[in-house]
Parts: sequence; structure tokens; C-alpha cells
Amino acid sequence: MDKVIKNGTIITEAESFITDILIQHGKITALGNMDDRLDNAHVIDAHHQLVMPGAVDVHTHIDLQAGQFHTTDDFFTGTRAALCGGTTSVIEHLAFGPKGCSLHHQIDAYQQRAASLAVGDYGLHGVIQHVDESVLREMGELVQEGITSFKIYLTYNFALKDDDVLRVMRRANELHAVIAVHCENDALVNYGRRQLVDQGKTAPYYHAVSRPNECEAEAISRMLHIAHMADDAPVYIVHISTAEGVQAIREARARGQKHIYAETCPQYLLLTQDCYYQEDALKYVMSPPLRHQSDCHALWQGLADGTIDVVATDHCPFNYRTDKQAGNGNFTKCPNGAPGIEERVMLLFSEGVQKGRISLQQFVKLLCSAPAKIYGAYPQKGCLLPGSDADLMMIDPNASSEIRIHALHGAVDYTLYEGWKLNGDITTVLSRGDIVYQQHVFTGTPGRGRFISRHVTI
Amino acid sequence: MDKVIKNGTIITEAESFITDILIQHGKITALGNMDDRLDNAHVIDAHHQLVMPGAVDVHTHIDLQAGQFHTTDDFFTGTRAALCGGTTSVIEHLAFGPKGCSLHHQIDAYQQRAASLAVGDYGLHGVIQHVDESVLREMGELVQEGITSFKIYLTYNFALKDDDVLRVMRRANELHAVIAVHCENDALVNYGRRQLVDQGKTAPYYHAVSRPNECEAEAISRMLHIAHMADDAPVYIVHISTAEGVQAIREARARGQKHIYAETCPQYLLLTQDCYYQEDALKYVMSPPLRHQSDCHALWQGLADGTIDVVATDHCPFNYRTDKQAGNGNFTKCPNGAPGIEERVMLLFSEGVQKGRISLQQFVKLLCSAPAKIYGAYPQKGCLLPGSDADLMMIDPNASSEIRIHALHGAVDYTLYEGWKLNGDITTVLSRGDIVYQQHVFTGTPGRGRFISRHVTI
Amino acid sequence: MDKVIKNGTIITEAESFITDILIQHGKITALGNMDDRLDNAHVIDAHHQLVMPGAVDVHTHIDLQAGQFHTTDDFFTGTRAALCGGTTSVIEHLAFGPKGCSLHHQIDAYQQRAASLAVGDYGLHGVIQHVDESVLREMGELVQEGITSFKIYLTYNFALKDDDVLRVMRRANELHAVIAVHCENDALVNYGRRQLVDQGKTAPYYHAVSRPNECEAEAISRMLHIAHMADDAPVYIVHISTAEGVQAIREARARGQKHIYAETCPQYLLLTQDCYYQEDALKYVMSPPLRHQSDCHALWQGLADGTIDVVATDHCPFNYRTDKQAGNGNFTKCPNGAPGIEERVMLLFSEGVQKGRISLQQFVKLLCSAPAKIYGAYPQKGCLLPGSDADLMMIDPNASSEIRIHALHGAVDYTLYEGWKLNGDITTVLSRGDIVYQQHVFTGTPGRGRFISRHVTI
Amino acid sequence: MDKVIKNGTIITEAESFITDILIQHGKITALGNMDDRLDNAHVIDAHHQLVMPGAVDVHTHIDLQAGQFHTTDDFFTGTRAALCGGTTSVIEHLAFGPKGCSLHHQIDAYQQRAASLAVGDYGLHGVIQHVDESVLREMGELVQEGITSFKIYLTYNFALKDDDVLRVMRRANELHAVIAVHCENDALVNYGRRQLVDQGKTAPYYHAVSRPNECEAEAISRMLHIAHMADDAPVYIVHISTAEGVQAIREARARGQKHIYAETCPQYLLLTQDCYYQEDALKYVMSPPLRHQSDCHALWQGLADGTIDVVATDHCPFNYRTDKQAGNGNFTKCPNGAPGIEERVMLLFSEGVQKGRISLQQFVKLLCSAPAKIYGAYPQKGCLLPGSDADLMMIDPNASSEIRIHALHGAVDYTLYEGWKLNGDITTVLSRGDIVYQQHVFTGTPGRGRFISRHVTI
Repeated sequence: MDKVIKNGTIITEAESFITDILIQHGKITALGNMDDRLDNAHVIDAHHQLVMPGAVDVHTHIDLQAGQFHTTDDFFTGTRAALCGGTTSVIEHLAFGPKGCSLHHQIDAYQQRAASLAVGDYGLHGVIQHVDESVLREMGELVQEGITSFKIYLTYNFALKDDDVLRVMRRANELHAVIAVHCENDALVNYGRRQLVDQGKTAPYYHAVSRPNECEAEAISRMLHIAHMADDAPVYIVHISTAEGVQAIREARARGQKHIYAETCPQYLLLTQDCYYQEDALKYVMSPPLRHQSDCHALWQGLADGTIDVVATDHCPFNYRTDKQAGNGNFTKCPNGAPGIEERVMLLFSEGVQKGRISLQQFVKLLCSAPAKIYGAYPQKGCLLPGSDADLMMIDPNASSEIRIHALHGAVDYTLYEGWKLNGDITTVLSRGDIVYQQHVFTGTPGRGRFISRHVTI
Repeated sequence: MDKVIKNGTIITEAESFITDILIQHGKITALGNMDDRLDNAHVIDAHHQLVMPGAVDVHTHIDLQAGQFHTTDDFFTGTRAALCGGTTSVIEHLAFGPKGCSLHHQIDAYQQRAASLAVGDYGLHGVIQHVDESVLREMGELVQEGITSFKIYLTYNFALKDDDVLRVMRRANELHAVIAVHCENDALVNYGRRQLVDQGKTAPYYHAVSRPNECEAEAISRMLHIAHMADDAPVYIVHISTAEGVQAIREARARGQKHIYAETCPQYLLLTQDCYYQEDALKYVMSPPLRHQSDCHALWQGLADGTIDVVATDHCPFNYRTDKQAGNGNFTKCPNGAPGIEERVMLLFSEGVQKGRISLQQFVKLLCSAPAKIYGAYPQKGCLLPGSDADLMMIDPNASSEIRIHALHGAVDYTLYEGWKLNGDITTVLSRGDIVYQQHVFTGTPGRGRFISRHVTI
Repeated sequence: MDKVIKNGTIITEAESFITDILIQHGKITALGNMDDRLDNAHVIDAHHQLVMPGAVDVHTHIDLQAGQFHTTDDFFTGTRAALCGGTTSVIEHLAFGPKGCSLHHQIDAYQQRAASLAVGDYGLHGVIQHVDESVLREMGELVQEGITSFKIYLTYNFALKDDDVLRVMRRANELHAVIAVHCENDALVNYGRRQLVDQGKTAPYYHAVSRPNECEAEAISRMLHIAHMADDAPVYIVHISTAEGVQAIREARARGQKHIYAETCPQYLLLTQDCYYQEDALKYVMSPPLRHQSDCHALWQGLADGTIDVVATDHCPFNYRTDKQAGNGNFTKCPNGAPGIEERVMLLFSEGVQKGRISLQQFVKLLCSAPAKIYGAYPQKGCLLPGSDADLMMIDPNASSEIRIHALHGAVDYTLYEGWKLNGDITTVLSRGDIVYQQHVFTGTPGRGRFISRHVTI
Repeated sequence: MDKVIKNGTIITEAESFITDILIQHGKITALGNMDDRLDNAHVIDAHHQLVMPGAVDVHTHIDLQAGQFHTTDDFFTGTRAALCGGTTSVIEHLAFGPKGCSLHHQIDAYQQRAASLAVGDYGLHGVIQHVDESVLREMGELVQEGITSFKIYLTYNFALKDDDVLRVMRRANELHAVIAVHCENDALVNYGRRQLVDQGKTAPYYHAVSRPNECEAEAISRMLHIAHMADDAPVYIVHISTAEGVQAIREARARGQKHIYAETCPQYLLLTQDCYYQEDALKYVMSPPLRHQSDCHALWQGLADGTIDVVATDHCPFNYRTDKQAGNGNFTKCPNGAPGIEERVMLLFSEGVQKGRISLQQFVKLLCSAPAKIYGAYPQKGCLLPGSDADLMMIDPNASSEIRIHALHGAVDYTLYEGWKLNGDITTVLSRGDIVYQQHVFTGTPGRGRFISRHVTI
């Protein structure tokens, strides 16, 4: 049965306007006055509601094995939480596979896991653990298979060396694929950790001390120089957390470098190192760590002036009462990461739009259209055009809501934002035309999520 | 009868996508697949065509009395030329009225003249010749009447002094109206002119010498400081022609000033002072004058990086064989101004988009959506949303065309671009749903143009 | 008799080193170990003392008729105060003469007055009240006579119009003379004053309100553009008081403009608008007015990074108990200006050097060598080279002192800095080899001061 | 016997003035008129000559074992060439010692070698090959011994990892010592070399290809971030060769970082990659390689605007007819480096000062005072103050000269500048009061050179 979203205020990255949306067979087929279509349609009244593209979260670790720990979500609970938070598409950063494994090894594993469980649509980033001719060839194959982006790490077990980064970036540029990079200087971070542990400084606060701002800024700057050496290969810096990191992006763009994309996450915009002095400090152990208020300020500034392109989550849910306790007494033992997949959209709406820090257009750009465009899911995802998937979220800007862990839809046992009051509320979410969330009730079924086959963009 | 634009590639400031557009009663009423509407509709095949919002020209002098001279166009020929060039809306800068006259004096006169003649839609900028309490009060009245912007001059007979500029800007800020400013330093320009004439330097080239780049940059900088003093009143700098002018805009934005808008025109992007050495140099006598290649380059750079918001025309057509000849032997006697209302869109398409200097999205932003948004005509004009006026232009990017004065539709006897080859061709133009130009034939009738009542925007 | 300054720590704009200085016939004739010269010399022990060039104050109004008011100093008390404060050279900005008078009219008057009274050396800036061929010719004559700089005003009775500014700057560039400009936008200031008076806002605080930061920044920016139009004529901006003013200097230099010089004064570095709320607010009525703490901060930053070249005084002493009371009840009636000729050096030493805001080298550059170089008195003045006039000041950095009006040596009845504690003390001052101040005792005689004939510098 | 330099034009970093210099016991003891000293003195007529501090070359490899190759100079020929070129002090970057050796190992060896051979004065930089507690402790000892700077490499066999760099910088900051860094990204350079060799691209030109600009800029940026992490430890970037490298320095200073010093060398200012197409291309194989004209331009710009502090040589002389031929057929086999110790001063004088690119003051700052100040040899070296060593060079700016290998005084068999015509000529050089070069004749004796014991500076 057709659906008509009636009288909503449509928000796009460029415009706000009131009209109806016609949905047929999971697609948006028309925008405009649909009065003559109402008879045979399921009509959803969107009067006084903001109707936006379903949000896209291009940085999730829903289903991650990290050493002995495994995130609490699977593709069912993870995409369920995403949908209830307005996020209709995720692009998952895969866990590392066995040393030396092919790119397909992990892709295949994840495709299998996601197929039966996902309720929302999902894409996958390839993860490059090592570089050789075979991997470079596989990059081309994956691009053909709709996986047009690759994650690399500069720290952790499979950190790439600079020459391997260069090879990957040159290959990506040939393929018009995007390289997403976790930027922290491995040698400096490890030195800091060893030194602190040697000095018995193992309380959670030292997690932040071990990874100073410069570790991030240096690595960002290095990646941008190498991307430039690869003829301005498309490079996407994930989870920027520092003022210095934002500045490194600005400097490179001012030098004329093209194809630079920058991401931050709500936790870096809203929380600070003070959290590490709280009793529940382990909840906040993530990498990069929380920073200072001045960094938050610089990140908001970066959103407002366009330096930062995307707000994603780095959703990485470990249970606080079990997993995170491993860090009790020694921050280096704590699994890194924090949940946020469901909270993102409303946090940015309430703290960003409603507080006047960003416009509605910037909101849609940061959460929906920019991530979809950068990662080649556009215009299937991230917009409300005729022909796009009917992924929508509806927000009542005049309602209010509150974040409570028991009301969230993921599997993890805590939220970083317990008790936060929000101005606005998500009232309805559609995924490919299906109402999957309405009046705070989730109605999706496992397995309905589909793989998002992406294209190259440049 | 309904119309359907079928299978066009829709270009907006944010997107390119293929769909149909339904037009009813002069409005766009839907975008999407309209296959079930075709039977009772006039179908326009837009396959392989770019379908864009009708362009908006916010800087025209169609019907201008300047001293003893009168432009060759009236609202009929002027808006006819505009329509044939893809421009479905103009906002006219009125001529000065008698000294001391009220704001309404000229508005009323122009409303009258335009009503019976215009074939395309038109708005009007108020022109402030002097400042007193009465004028400031009238500004509020005009805003109520849909005239939400005001032009001031820093040179010519009715140049405002800085304190009057401040008063106007403070009033505009209260009203959320926009002040458009012609920025040249009056004292410096007049000194230069007197000096040159005294030295017998009266050839057309000395027109350029008399108005050096600094005269513009200084005045722009001054206006931006005064606007800042008026709490960041909305200020719109018309016809920027110099690298230094672009830089002044950048500097003010870098200082954090808000509500600054910048315009340039095709002639400053494409032509240089070398024209003043040609036999037909008088054609090019306009203010500001044509500059150097390095200025053109800086202006294109300003378009590409977003420093410049709008490309308008400053269309001001005097006949070359009669009016402009008054400048023969003395450039100071030559009526200032040049035509361009019909050439603008295709010049920017061919020289900008097709040469890779700007994207299709920037093209639409510069010509359509930005001017409509800045001046409060949006979303009635400047976009292709359900509910917008069905003003559209269709461009065939694979066709080619050539600028010839005899093929243009204005009343003036020359074009600055005689013989220019263009990549692309305008195939069809609609104004409020009416086909007014198709297959190079104009089909509009005088008096069908309507006044565009604008709103405030900030 | 020869003099030897023994064992002092010599401070120059580039170096700190310990040596002796030999003085003969009023000149420095040698630096180095003078042990074999001590027998026949007057030896001044400078052990643990900083020995610096006598300071140069290039912005004084010692003897100024302004409307009905006259400053309290004459060339005797004014240069006496200067010497006791370490300032061995002043360059006086003349008062306006009768309307239409020649440049020589005022120069001649001042030469006469200074000759018999001055105890310290003095130069004169020409003051340009109007511009015509005769004035432009006289500029050349004055340069021949050792008066190589000219002051112009953009506000007050003899404010120059922009075209006259251009003529003056072009002439100055021919002559390699420097134009010093008082930068405030006349129209805006006068409008602000009228408006405030009309509203009955005449308390001293409204003096500051009537001259907002933008009035200064705009005028500076305008002057820099006009100087650029005059082929980068040498332009010297006096008494910069705002962050925006400093920024305007930076922007112009970043655009590549040459021959820009910038001055501020101690009052703008150290005092704020809060003074206008004090009971003795009229003491602080000067133009430009005192600003905000953020402006002070920006000015210190400008000293530290080299944006500002000179710290002068704008010394303009009116008695508080008489003259300044004219402003009681109406700030517009208060004679503008404040004293500071004696306080400058030690304020900058204590608040600048001793607080780590500037280095000793920057101190000497700002107070001695830069003003002497810019205005063509170097190397006669402003440095400690063989052949230079033996103008020196000696500071004991470990002593402390306090500013008290009764201990100062000018004629005015107040100081802006009553009771300020200073780290450091001036112990000895020499003018052309004569000890004029030692152990807090002044020993100069009227008429010993000599005219400083300056040369051009570029 | 005393010496008097009579009537020379003394050039310092701040001033130009004419006076005499008295020299006693190898020291400057006085500046000033020395007419009464002439009887018992050796008088050197300096009329119409520029008298400058002897130049300081803080980047030499006079006596370097690099793999199987050894530079052609020893401390005799090397410092002889330096002196004849106006350079009275060198600070030698030691060769690497055996793996794991102490810092003193190489210092001791070099002290021994230099003591008997050097004719000019010499300092030594410590070279850090590995980092452990013992090395960090030794750094403190060396500082006590007058070796207050340390060289580290980011490429070659003893490249330091980033964490070791951090440790060294933190230690240096404690000691107020300076870390000099060779900045090239090791992984990227080695990858480039391997790849080119694999492809058979081994002609000299590929040496440049193997080390793109970004390899330098990235490494500089990385070092600056790490120095910032070490609380703005003093860091000195050697031999900057790229526009991007200059920009990285600018960016860091604009971010507010302190204690950054930047060096370039004449070859990067004057020569380009075109040299690698010449028949004698192997002469130019050095690291970093020669770049493009645009880089030369950016480096000159960096000198002019103060971004670059020092021009040194990286003098590293291998014989062209023997050693360099090892690279015949494979650039990777060619010993890296080129001579320049004698050519530097006159090249910068002729190409810099005489062509108007830098002032005489900048010339002295870049070659004499800045290197001496940064590296703690000031005011013993690098200036002409009473008490300074009587190291001087005299240049006749009106003479002309020409570079010919047979007229140079080093041991190497070629110069990069064969046949270059120079405006100006070095007429006389004094080292600690001894005339060591006059009328093109060298008169020094081996072993007269002394170790320069340096102090810390911050």
C-alpha cells in the first residue's frame, strides 16, 4: 500500500519547505501535493513535524571482537537502536580478522552475520590490516561489490606504516574509493602508556593523559600529507576530538588540498575529561579520549564553519558492569569504546540545532547527506529525492524527551548521557517505506535490513 | 492544462537527479514519476536536458534615466531578453528620482511602468537618495509592501555620507532588510577624473585609470566596518570587480562578521581593460570598469571557494551607435553601463561549468537559489520545490550556441560578447508554468509579468 | 671633559652586552673597554644598570592651543618631564594654525618658542590643514629643512578629505617623507556625538560610546588603501587603540603592502573604559578613548609579534582642576588629551619587560630605535653607535619606584597612573653627553635643547 | 700588536654605520674613532668596505665517514675553505659512530681530529643514534662541556622513532638545549627508492623523484607537533628545501608554538631539479634533493619575511671523479652530499643582497648572528661587540668575482657553481684577530682553530 507523509516540513541540506511525500514500494516516488492519492494510501500526518532523510551513521562497531571482548550488540540490536534513534543506514567498520587474512575474509563473515539479523540497512567498510599486491587487487574487487571505502588504523595491532598508507591511498585514488583513517601516533601513545603504567598511573584519568592532543593532530597532519602525495587521494579522518585536529584540516584545505573529509562524534562535542574523575569513569574510556572544553568549542566551530563534514558515532558498546570493569585498576586493560548509535541524532538536534549552534540545513548535511555522498550511498540514502529509498525520520521540535538507558534499544547496559533532557523527540522512522518506529515503539523484524551497495563518487 | 517535464536531470544547489516535474496552475506541485499524469498533461521531454530553476537577476537597470540618457530597454524588452536568457525573475534597481523625493515616488512610477509591459516577473529595490526620519519610516512601509531591500550609492549624485549609511544600516537591521551598496570612493574617483580631464586624458582607457582597484576595495572595506558597527546589518556588495574587493570580503568574514553578501557580474569575470584599447571601447564604459586578468582570476576563485554569493548582470543598456557616442573624445560624457541580461546564464554555464571552474550545484546557487534567498524571494523563486512558481530553464549541455546581437531579444544595439562560442544551449524556459521560450522562439506577451512581493529573511 | 659609562649592560634592539661607553663632545665616540681613558674622564658607574639609548617620543602635544584651551606645558616643562622620564628626543605635533595658513606659519612659530625653552632635543612634524599646490610645494621645502614627516587628521576641524589625503600621500612618496595619520571616521564620530547629546547622554562615559572601535578600524583601513593607491607611500598610524585597528594593520601587511608603521600609547595598553565610571573620569577624556580589556590584550599581542612598531605618548596635558572641568556635565566640552611624557618609559619597562610581555630588545626597538629610524633621526638618535648623540638612559631593573604627580616634572596637575608601583627605576639620563637627570634630580637648563634636523629614510 | 679596522661600514643585524674597530689579543675591544690608537697598531683600511661579523656555518660535514665513503675534507682543508669564504666558525654534525656507542665516543674522536688540524674555530653538535637513560644523561654532561645542541635523523640507519624523538626533546627542554632534525619521512623515502630501483629507474633524476616534497613537509610537521608535545622544546629544522616545508613552519608559528628555528642552504635557493638532467648530475645528488623553481621562490620569500632563520651549507664534499661515480647507473649508490662551505657567503651576498631579495641586515642575521644566538655561541661569535672574538669578514660590494674550483680552498674536486659570476668580493677575513685571508691569499696555520664551547640560550 502506498504511503503519504502529509504536510510535513521537509528539511534538506539546502531547504525547508512544506509538502507531501509519496512512498511506493519502499521508494520515494514523488514530492508535492498528494491530495488525490490519499484514498488508497496510508497517510501519516506530519503536520508541525520536521521530516528529514533517515540519518546515516558511517562509523559503527556494532559487532566487534576486540581481543577478549565482544561488543554487546549484534546486527539486530545494533540496527534496532540505530533505527529508533533515526538512523536508517549504518556503515560498519569491521573487526580485525586473523593476521594475514584477505579483505574478503572479514567482509564475508560480516555479510553472513548481518544478513539474518539486521533490521536496518547496512554497508561495510573494508579494513586493511596489511598491504600487499593481493590486498591492493582485492580493493578493486570490493569496489565492484559495492564496498567503496576502506578503514586503516595508525595505532593498535594492525597499524599501517606510512609507506603502506601511501600504497593504499594511491590505489584508492585509482579506484575513486575513500580511505577512512583512525589518526593517533602509535609510537607516542604506546610510549605514554608504558610510562604511565611504569609510574603506577593507571586510574582512568591517565587514559586521557596517555593520548595527548598532539598525538591526534600529528597523525592527521601526516595522513593529509601522504594523501596529498597520492595526488589528493580521498581521505576521511574519523572521530576528530581536538582543536588541533580541526586546525590541521583547515590548514590542509587552505593549502589547496582536495578530497579531505572530517568527522567528529557527539561525545567529543559534549563531554570532557572531567568525566574521568567520576566514579563511573570507565564508561568513558575510548580512543581518542575525551578532551577539554576548548576542544569541544573548536569542534562546534568546525561544524558551524564547514570544516567538519560529518557527525558519526564510533558506536562501540561494551557493558559497563562486566567488560569495562576489566579496566578497574588499570585503564590499559579496559576495552576501548562507548555506545551512542541511538543517542546521536537527538543529541545533535537538541544541543546543536535547538541551541543555535548549527542550522537545520547543517544538521541534515552532517547526519544524512554528507555521509551518504562521501561514501557513495547517495542518492539512495541521505536525501528525500524521487527515487531515493523511503528512509525518513520525523522529529517533533516542540516535544521534549530524556535519555534513559532502559528506554534505549541496544544491548549495552549504559549510556554516556543518562538523564540528559532533550528539546525535541523522534516521532516516526521509516526504513524503505516501512514504519519501523512510531510512538516510541519499535516494529521492525530481524533480517529485513539490506546490504547497501555503494558506488564511487569522485 | 497540467504540464509534465519528463525525465529531466534536475539540478539544485545540492543535488543532481533525474525525475519528472508536475506543473499545475503555474506552480510546481510535485516531483517524482508522473507516468500516470501524462494523459491529460502537456508533456515536455527533458531527456538529456538539465532542468534548473529559472535564474534570478537581482541587479538590473532595465528602465533607467541617467542624466540625459535613457536605457534602450523597457520592461517589455528587458524582461523578454531576460526570459530568453533563462532569467525568469529580475529585481530592478530604480533610477534616482527628483532630489528629496520619497521612496515611494520612484517605486510607484516603476510599478506603473512595469505592470503593463513586463513579460517576466519583477521585484524592485528601494533606492535611498537621502536619509531623514521620513525615509527611515518609509523603509518600514516598503518592507510591508514586499520591497525588502534598498540600494545605496557611495558615488554619483546621491552618494550617501558615512553617517547616513550607518543610519540606513541600523534601520535595515531592525527591519531585517538588506542594503545593497555600490562601493566606490567618491572623492577619489572624482579627483581621478578631474585630474585626467585636466591633463587631456579623455580616451576611453582613462575611464579605467580614473577608478583604480583601491577605490573599490576601500569602499567595500568601509561598508563592512559600518555594517559591523550596525550590529552586523545585512549588507550586499554589488558588482565586485577586483581581487582586492574579494579579499576585503574574506577578511571581514574571517573577523567573524555575519550577513555579508557579495556579487560579481560576467563582464568582470570574462573581460579585461584590454577592451578599452579596441575601436569600440565605448561599449565597455561602465562603473566599476573592466580590470586585469589577475582580477578575473581572483573573482573566479571567489566563486569557487564561496566568497562570492551571486552572479548578477548590472544590465544597463545604452545604444552604442547613439548614446555611447557621447563619450567620443571624452570618457566622462559617456553614459555608464552595458547590457548583459540575456547573456549571463549561458556565459556562466559555458565559461564556468563547462570549463570546470564551478560545479553545476554552484551554478544554480550563484544564479538562482542564493539571490532568491538573500533577497527574500525564496522559495517562490530560485528553486524547484513543490509550491514554488514553475519558473524553469532547460539547458542542453551537449548543444552549442553563439552570441550574436541580432539573435538577442533586448532593444540595445550591441553585446559585449559578439561572436562568443558557447558550449550548451538554452532550449526551453517556463515562467509560472507558461512556456515563454522554446526552440529559440519567444512566446510571451507583455503584461503577463507579475510583481514579486518579497519577505525578510534573517 | 670626556665621560665614560663604565660596566653597564648595554641594551640595543638586537643585543645585550656589557661594556664601557666613551662620550666626547656630546657624542658617543667609542664602545669597549675604556680603562685607559678613565683618568681624564668623568666616570659614571653603570654596574648592574641597563644602559639604553635615550627614548624618542614621536607623538607629543607639549605646547598646544586647542580652541579656548592651552596645554599646561611649554617646551621647558615638557622636555624637562621627558628627560626625567628617559626621553631625550621628542617630535612635536604642532597645533593647527589659522585657516589657510602656510605650513611654515606654524613651524616658524614653534621653532621660535622651542629655541629658548627646550631643555631636551626636539623635532617637528609639519601639520597639513589644507591641500593645494602651495602646500605640496612647501612639503618639499620642509623636507629640505629637516622636517621629513607630516601629520594629517581625518577628524576635527581640519580633517582632510580622501582625495586630499591621496594628494598628500603621493607627494610624500615622491619626497620619501612619512605621513602620520589620526584615524577616526569623522562623519561617524560626529553623528555619534550629536545623537548622544540629543539624548542627554553627556556623562564622560559617553565619550567612549561616541567613538566605537569601528570608527578607528575603518579609518585605518581607508588610509592603508589610499597609501597603497599612492604606490605604498609611507604611512604611520598614530595611537592605535583597538583590536580591530591592529588587525587592519596585519591584513594590509599580509596583502603585501610596504611602508606601513603603527603606533600605540601606554594608556591604550594599560587602562580601560572602566576609568570613565570613576569620579575623576574627565582625566581620561582623550581621542581615541580608552577601550576594553580585550583591546589592551590585542595591543600587547601586537607589540609582541611586531605588528606595532612604536609606543609613543600623545602627551597632551590639560589641567584637571581647571581645563578638564569644562567637560563637567558635557563630555563634548572637555578638552581632549592626557599627559604621559614622563611616565611612558618606566610604564613600558615595568608592565612590559618585567612582566615578560616584551623583551628588552623589543623595549629598545619600540621606544628608541624604531621611532628614530621611521622618522629619520637615526643614527643620530635612538641608538648607541659611535657617532650617535650621547643620549642615554640608565635603568636599575632591581630598584622600584612609584608614580606620584608631585614627583613628576611637567606642569600638569595629574597623572593617569597615580600611585602605580613600578619595578625598576631610571637612575641617570644623558642628553648629548650632559647629565640632565641623576638620583631623581633634574639638572638641565632651558634653551640647551636643539632642533633635530631629520632626513628621509626610504 | 693591536689592530684597527679603519673607516669600515659596519653591518650588524640592526644597523649600518661607519666607524673603526679596535682589536686586541684576538678580541674586539672597542668600536669608535680610533685615531689616537693608530700609531702602535696594524691599521687595516676598510674604506668603502662592508665589515661584518665572521659568518657562522652551523651545518657542516667536513669530516664524515658515510658507509664506504669519506668526505674529501679534513678539519684543515674544511676550515681553510670556510675561512676563505668568510666563515670563521663552523659547527660540525658528526658522523654516526658504531651502533650503540655513547655520545662521547664520537665527540671525543672529533675533538681529537679537529684539535691539530683546524685553522678556524669549530663547535660540535652531539649526534643521537639511539635513546636510553644513559644517552639522556650524557646529554646533560655534554651541555656542561659546551656542546649544547644535538642532531637527530628521521631517516638513514640511525633514524629515531617518534617516541624516542619525544624523549630527546623533553630532555632537551630541561637542559635548554636545541635539537636539530633532518626531516624526511623514512618509510616513504625508502619505499620510493625500492620502487624506482625495481622499475629500473636509477638515473640521477630519480633521486629527486624518490624524495617528493611531501616527505619533507610531513616530517617537519611531525617534528613540530612532537616539539609542541614536549612543551615547545627548542627545535631546529635543517636544510628546508620545499615550499611546503616553509609553510609547515609558518603554520606552527601561527598556532603559537615557540622555539622553532628553520634553516635552508644556498643550493635549495639557487639550483633546481634541472641539474639532474645534466651530464654531471651526480654532483647534485644530496638529501633532500634539489627541487623546483617554485620552491626556490618560496624559500627566498621565507628569508625575506623571517620564516627562515639561518642559511647554512650542509657542506658534505665527496669527489665527483671518484666517490660520486659510485652512483653511476644507480643513484642509490651515490654518496649523498655536496660541497659549499666556501661559496655560501658570497652567493647569498650576490644573489640575495645585491639582487634586492634581502637587506644587509638580514644577510648578517641569517649568516652570523642568528646561528650564533640559536646555538649559544653568541656574543662570542656572530657579532661585532666589544668583548666578542675578533672574527670579521670584509666585503667589497663594488668588486666582482667568479667561482672557480681551482681557486677554492677545500679538498673536493668540484663546485656546484662553477663559473658563477658574483657581485662583490671578500677582501679580508680575520679569525680571533688574525688575518687569515687577504687579497685572495690564505695565511692560516693548522691547529690554530679552537673549540667553541657553547652555552644554553633560553
